[in-house]
Amino acid sequence: MKQLIGSAIIGQSGGPTSVINASAYGVIRTALDNPCITNVYGAAHGIKGVLDDILYDMSKEDPYELSLLLNTPSSALGSCRYKLKDPDVDDTDYRRILEIFQKYNVRYFFYNGGNDSMDTCNKISKYMQKVGYECRVMGVPKTIDNDLFGTDHCPGFASAAKYVATSCMEIYHDARVYDTPMICIIEIMGRHAGWLAASAAAATYMGCGPDLVYLPEVDFDVEVFLSDVEKLYKKSGKVIIAVSEGIHDASGKLIAEYGAENAKVDSFGHKQLGGLAATLVGMVKNRIEDVKIRGIELSLLQRCAAHCASQTDIDESFAAGQTAVESAVNGITDKMVAFERSYDEKGNYICNMKLVDLTLCANTEKKVPREWINAEGNGLEQAYIDYLLPLLQGDPKPWKEKGLPRFANLKKIVVK
Amino acid sequence: MKQLIGSAIIGQSGGPTSVINASAYGVIRTALDNPCITNVYGAAHGIKGVLDDILYDMSKEDPYELSLLLNTPSSALGSCRYKLKDPDVDDTDYRRILEIFQKYNVRYFFYNGGNDSMDTCNKISKYMQKVGYECRVMGVPKTIDNDLFGTDHCPGFASAAKYVATSCMEIYHDARVYDTPMICIIEIMGRHAGWLAASAAAATYMGCGPDLVYLPEVDFDVEVFLSDVEKLYKKSGKVIIAVSEGIHDASGKLIAEYGAENAKVDSFGHKQLGGLAATLVGMVKNRIEDVKIRGIELSLLQRCAAHCASQTDIDESFAAGQTAVESAVNGITDKMVAFERSYDEKGNYICNMKLVDLTLCANTEKKVPREWINAEGNGLEQAYIDYLLPLLQGDPKPWKEKGLPRFANLKKIVVK
Repeated sequence: MKQLIGSAIIGQSGGPTSVINASAYGVIRTALDNPCITNVYGAAHGIKGVLDDILYDMSKEDPYELSLLLNTPSSALGSCRYKLKDPDVDDTDYRRILEIFQKYNVRYFFYNGGNDSMDTCNKISKYMQKVGYECRVMGVPKTIDNDLFGTDHCPGFASAAKYVATSCMEIYHDARVYDTPMICIIEIMGRHAGWLAASAAAATYMGCGPDLVYLPEVDFDVEVFLSDVEKLYKKSGKVIIAVSEGIHDASGKLIAEYGAENAKVDSFGHKQLGGLAATLVGMVKNRIEDVKIRGIELSLLQRCAAHCASQTDIDESFAAGQTAVESAVNGITDKMVAFERSYDEKGNYICNMKLVDLTLCANTEKKVPREWINAEGNGLEQAYIDYLLPLLQGDPKPWKEKGLPRFANLKKIVVK
Repeated sequence: MKQLIGSAIIGQSGGPTSVINASAYGVIRTALDNPCITNVYGAAHGIKGVLDDILYDMSKEDPYELSLLLNTPSSALGSCRYKLKDPDVDDTDYRRILEIFQKYNVRYFFYNGGNDSMDTCNKISKYMQKVGYECRVMGVPKTIDNDLFGTDHCPGFASAAKYVATSCMEIYHDARVYDTPMICIIEIMGRHAGWLAASAAAATYMGCGPDLVYLPEVDFDVEVFLSDVEKLYKKSGKVIIAVSEGIHDASGKLIAEYGAENAKVDSFGHKQLGGLAATLVGMVKNRIEDVKIRGIELSLLQRCAAHCASQTDIDESFAAGQTAVESAVNGITDKMVAFERSYDEKGNYICNMKLVDLTLCANTEKKVPREWINAEGNGLEQAYIDYLLPLLQGDPKPWKEKGLPRFANLKKIVVK
């Protein structure tokens, strides 16, 4: 293998997670320590930072502040949702990227993101190969949606799942405090895949979670839903429901849009558009007279609640970044780091690093297997619980100051 | 002092907190261990459990499970929102309570709650004195609202504040991830007092919190608010706003009701009523063209997120329960346990237990001092931060199982 000497760029893209910075730190720390890598640059807001020539010099950062990235949520370098065009149609962006790569002698490119980011990664890799510019390109996965193909699970998912399951357990206790009836609908992120909403079932497994869990993997039937809720309500007066924001009917129409159609324009001239939880709350109110019901949107917190992260997730996210750098230095390119699960003879979970072709991961979605969802489509089977629980292990000990988290404070010195 | 031998009842009332069970455990553990107390009963759903003669025998509980109450959110014995009538008008309930006290030889009554619960406590105490039934009655405070009179702060407040401040810090990072404008409005509990919403300012103090914080202590002017938001938006594109649900205009009208008036009836015949955050989002959308804005309601989680509790709060909550029992056994009655703050010569915070007359605490509300709020009424002064920070110290190490919290599972064996 030929030794390749040059600079490295790390960029972050897509929606944030609690641990995407742990992966970035895995890349940055490993790259700074590797003699083949002459400079380590952080791209401001992902590929946009490359196109705009805004690169931060990571060697100028205080090592201690960098280490705080392990427990700092959201994308510290900034993120973007920029989709590169097909280079055969318009190669403007690619020529610009090549120009920047040449300017800084970039020979290593690490991109930290989800489906779309792996697509970006793949396109850049193929373009550089085509024009004969030697550069090793590696994808470092992240997504709370857990829908990346070719990996057992995705960095970021477990921490979000831990937050969702923990919050559901706490809401369960809160919702049961009075001896009066109460329905609670908890809305969880996940447009196309229900991995995260499914984690609410871990709370049920622990004895205090939702009675019903709905994922986009199964068509949602409003009538069956209302009848299920009514039955449980009549039986015990307490019903907790977890729903993925992406649930849809048999025609593919999002249930959240049912509310949008009925929404009236308010005095400001805006559609009073609630989310899915609000829509379902309206439906249940219509069905059950005088019901006490509450919709809870877990909102941004489910993807940025670093205070409730899984240490397993942090460790694996760091390892993914580290593996990307080590593999690239060892001559590998055009791959995404992925996880393979195994168990030792005592049944303990082990996470092994592997590499998969970027082409395979880009734009392919992995969904919750139908057989992990119960026949009725309103709960999860033990197979899902067995899959999830090992990923939630371990609580981080983040650095605190005055009782509150102390997040990384990067200087972000732009390279001239 | 005459030794009083007999049974004890502990009841919980009002909205739950993350640590109200730590106080209950303080009462139960101390009472079980005290030779003057012959039986320890938990009232099912507060005073309702007494009226309905549903009392749980605490001696039948596994001691380990009881100890898990320290980290179990919400009211483990069940709560209620039952207001006793004035005994001079209708003494039915009081005669029933006396009957139950006599039936079980109850000589100690501990009531764990907020303003209304101290009122209940006070009325029962006065009634028992009037009819000459010897019984020592003690209030054990709790409220995330922190609005009880006669105490430096209230058990439950600090944990909720820690959750609010931590979540604001995390949302701040999430909201800054893209280089596009973004406004975020975070709605925090607190109808009449702004103590909890004010805790969002601790995130700002840490360098990553809201730009604007609004409390019910200051009249809210919609026009000034919109102009403040617009100014910040034009300057940096990023604005985070924290609001107490109880903010109102100069006439006393809740801002949340502005939305209700404009709300249209949906196809189900229900008013599409958003909360305060939704109302403010609508107002800002009307003012700033094409703004990207998000309303986040911290919802039930702020009062039950035991996973983000303050160990100081847990310790003090336990101590409050313990002090209530010890004081009562030593002959004291008709008091609420309260906290007095002091600092040692090194400036370290110390929490001292004291007792205040129930009559003083019942139905009196303590608000955030005006001088702790900035002149503009949209932020907090350092005095508030200095007040708050010592209360947030320490992270609990709750018992976990499979990576998730293991909450107390009481048998709740009803006394025949």
